[in-house]
Amino acid sequence: MNFQMIRYILGRILLTEAGLLVLPMLIALGCAEKTWPFLAVIGLLLLACLAIGGRRRPENTALYAKDGFVVVALTWLFTSAFGALPFVFSGDIPSYVDAFFETVSGFTTTGATILTVVEDMSRSGLFWRSFTHWIGGMGVLVFVMAILPMSDGHGMHVLRAEMPGPSAGKLVSRMNDTAKILYGIYFVLTIALILLLRFGGMTWFDACVHAFGTAGTGGFSSRGLSIGAYGSAYFDIVITVFMLLFGVNFNIYYFLLIKRWREALASEELRAYFLIVLGATAAITVNIAHLFENAGTALRHAAFQVASIMTTTGYTTANFDEWPVFSRAILVTLMFIGACAGSTGGGIKVVRVVTMLKTASNDLKQMIHPNAVLTVRVEGKALPQRQVRGVQGYLAVYVLIFTGSVLLLSLNGFDLVTTFTAVASCINNIGPGLALVGPLGNFAEFSAWSKLLLSFDMLVGRLEIFPMLLVVSPALWQHTFMRRRRE
Amino acid sequence: MNFQMIRYILGRILLTEAGLLVLPMLIALGCAEKTWPFLAVIGLLLLACLAIGGRRRPENTALYAKDGFVVVALTWLFTSAFGALPFVFSGDIPSYVDAFFETVSGFTTTGATILTVVEDMSRSGLFWRSFTHWIGGMGVLVFVMAILPMSDGHGMHVLRAEMPGPSAGKLVSRMNDTAKILYGIYFVLTIALILLLRFGGMTWFDACVHAFGTAGTGGFSSRGLSIGAYGSAYFDIVITVFMLLFGVNFNIYYFLLIKRWREALASEELRAYFLIVLGATAAITVNIAHLFENAGTALRHAAFQVASIMTTTGYTTANFDEWPVFSRAILVTLMFIGACAGSTGGGIKVVRVVTMLKTASNDLKQMIHPNAVLTVRVEGKALPQRQVRGVQGYLAVYVLIFTGSVLLLSLNGFDLVTTFTAVASCINNIGPGLALVGPLGNFAEFSAWSKLLLSFDMLVGRLEIFPMLLVVSPALWQHTFMRRRRE
Repeated sequence: MNFQMIRYILGRILLTEAGLLVLPMLIALGCAEKTWPFLAVIGLLLLACLAIGGRRRPENTALYAKDGFVVVALTWLFTSAFGALPFVFSGDIPSYVDAFFETVSGFTTTGATILTVVEDMSRSGLFWRSFTHWIGGMGVLVFVMAILPMSDGHGMHVLRAEMPGPSAGKLVSRMNDTAKILYGIYFVLTIALILLLRFGGMTWFDACVHAFGTAGTGGFSSRGLSIGAYGSAYFDIVITVFMLLFGVNFNIYYFLLIKRWREALASEELRAYFLIVLGATAAITVNIAHLFENAGTALRHAAFQVASIMTTTGYTTANFDEWPVFSRAILVTLMFIGACAGSTGGGIKVVRVVTMLKTASNDLKQMIHPNAVLTVRVEGKALPQRQVRGVQGYLAVYVLIFTGSVLLLSLNGFDLVTTFTAVASCINNIGPGLALVGPLGNFAEFSAWSKLLLSFDMLVGRLEIFPMLLVVSPALWQHTFMRRRRE
Repeated sequence: MNFQMIRYILGRILLTEAGLLVLPMLIALGCAEKTWPFLAVIGLLLLACLAIGGRRRPENTALYAKDGFVVVALTWLFTSAFGALPFVFSGDIPSYVDAFFETVSGFTTTGATILTVVEDMSRSGLFWRSFTHWIGGMGVLVFVMAILPMSDGHGMHVLRAEMPGPSAGKLVSRMNDTAKILYGIYFVLTIALILLLRFGGMTWFDACVHAFGTAGTGGFSSRGLSIGAYGSAYFDIVITVFMLLFGVNFNIYYFLLIKRWREALASEELRAYFLIVLGATAAITVNIAHLFENAGTALRHAAFQVASIMTTTGYTTANFDEWPVFSRAILVTLMFIGACAGSTGGGIKVVRVVTMLKTASNDLKQMIHPNAVLTVRVEGKALPQRQVRGVQGYLAVYVLIFTGSVLLLSLNGFDLVTTFTAVASCINNIGPGLALVGPLGNFAEFSAWSKLLLSFDMLVGRLEIFPMLLVVSPALWQHTFMRRRRE
């Protein structure tokens, strides 16, 4: 592993986090709240940057898949560990474990909260909390577009070959190529949403908070009742539309920008994504129609919740925990499907589900025509066997980690629905689940070790499993240190 | 497809079913119950045999994977459809859908019941119900040993290469080779269990019923409280041991018979199986110790329930639905793992779980050493990529069918735990689930279409998914009829 480069990048990232903390500090200044918590953490980050990073770019800047994965896992861990401190220092969240959970939930754009009364928080705290979503969403885009494709098989990179820039290898060159375009799109969409919310009557502060939560598909709100607190059809519809937009593969926007309309709209994943949203919305609308005054309202709430869960945002306008079982079962299924690959959303990803369905159908055809040579075609291209196996291997590991987490969490003694959906909600980066962790619930009651377990699950889900597994794998460190000693 | 041969085999199987119905008819005669329901069905079966089968063996007897799968799927469907009739005719189960569910549950060795008061049934009805388990268990052995290995990739056939006889190709030659040995082992173990139960104080009738249920890993009992009705430590222990024995790959017994001890005991699947049983029993014993008068009783009930669920039998001695969440979560996990391949048990199978764990660990190692050439070794042999993909593909299709079934069943409006564990219980061929379908519950409340859906799930699980998918796949019949028309 290129340790020098890993330390250099980590140092840069901590420096960036210090810079980003200036924003909530300014909010604190404006609202006459304590600024020292933010200042102190900025100071600590600068010290940590000096200690870890070294200021000079190493000569050998080559980073390969393994290093990229380690950098990404450590990035999310370190920024969360430091990002939790302002909450502790300001007294907003006195327990460090709680603050860590909340910050991991922020940076992984999950939106699961341990707060029982959101409105008690300081303005600067609320701002930083939502801002972590926005930062995390941006980080994820770079991760899935630039770092993941380096590891063949387990990445998703279905559209990768059509992306500009070198297709694999060094992290840095790709980051410069792609990241700017992605940041640009992300930035413009966020600004558009802030303006739309402001013009609809939200304060600038609330508009920012909810735009950050929507852009990162996070789900933190400044209100305990989430978007439902406003009771406004305008906000519901605007946020539904933008949640869906942020759940789309950002490559599609790039195609639209360079006017390759046909390719953008021909995306199989995009069509499957909207098909699932439409189907689920229709089914739930019919199923819940009797709970609302008219079909229009039922449709509005169904569409909002479907968009929110499918894109793994987690905002709510209604307490879907009280909806009929069929609607709840659909929502739980959507939790696992998740958004499109290359979006800020989490979950297993639509393209993986499409690939699995096609592979299953192929396997069946192969049995009917044993001598036929069949390939799985996704997005108009034949997937190599290695990638098919990558998708299936991903699912297998996902199921194993999910099962292990449910088993461990059940030791905390909550009912099965709470336990199951808490893990589902965290590993898929959604936020709310059902029962105790439903739209009106929160994660406060869980024990400290449960919160750390769920934080691990959030990171596992957000970073497509393997980086987190790699960084906790003894095999990696054994190998690395043995080699270092030999050198 | 070799239609003539498929019809010939089906005819033979219906003839066999007619023969097997003589046994419950004799019971009816002995207990002075109605015999005509059995006589009538025997008559119908003979007619059906003439109509479908033709009496002469066709000249071309070659059967390949596809034909084998179709035969197997049709066998389970037809025998269940006819096997349900005695219950309807005798009035034991007046509704045909209920009777069909019960019979599918019998032949698939699931043990899920729609009966609310088991003791109300006629003796001959009870006997036939449990006898279907024994027949089904035998059928499954032949299926997994002889037919499944014909389809490369999706079969399990981990020990296949070491089996005597031709390794693939024609069904008939293999059946003669292997089936007799398997039947012999199955028969001897069943007789041993009947004697042990009789000597422990059960009536001959009850001893047969529970030996059939144990041998087939089915779980139908003549008592509403299952084995718990006897409150006898002796029965609990004997049945725990025999459930575990019937959950072992029957190849192991074959190895023991021919005195290849080392190979038998070196089986990785066998060790994993007992390791899981021991681990789960230990964890549950600690978790439930406070519910029982002493640790020994807790251990006895924990071991019984673990053996029963893991081998997918479904007998119960305690209402585990009232156990702590951790214990319930473990049991639900065991439902999915299931027994060893090549046993009469259901579920995903231990060898598949072992393969998935090893593949995941390999994938991780591959990321740490990108240039290493790694293979997944199971049972001391390197698995070809095709088989690894087969296992992962199996899991993917399993997850898809499971999810679809839960979604559909949720339309019936029961709570999520009932819905989820009802599907888990049926697709893994266990019997009881949790909540409404817990140890003291049953499937009576489900609607008719739900019962048919769950019957389909039982068949899907029992026949390793693909035969059932194949037989309901329009692609198969299109292809077949187009070819026939051309000919």
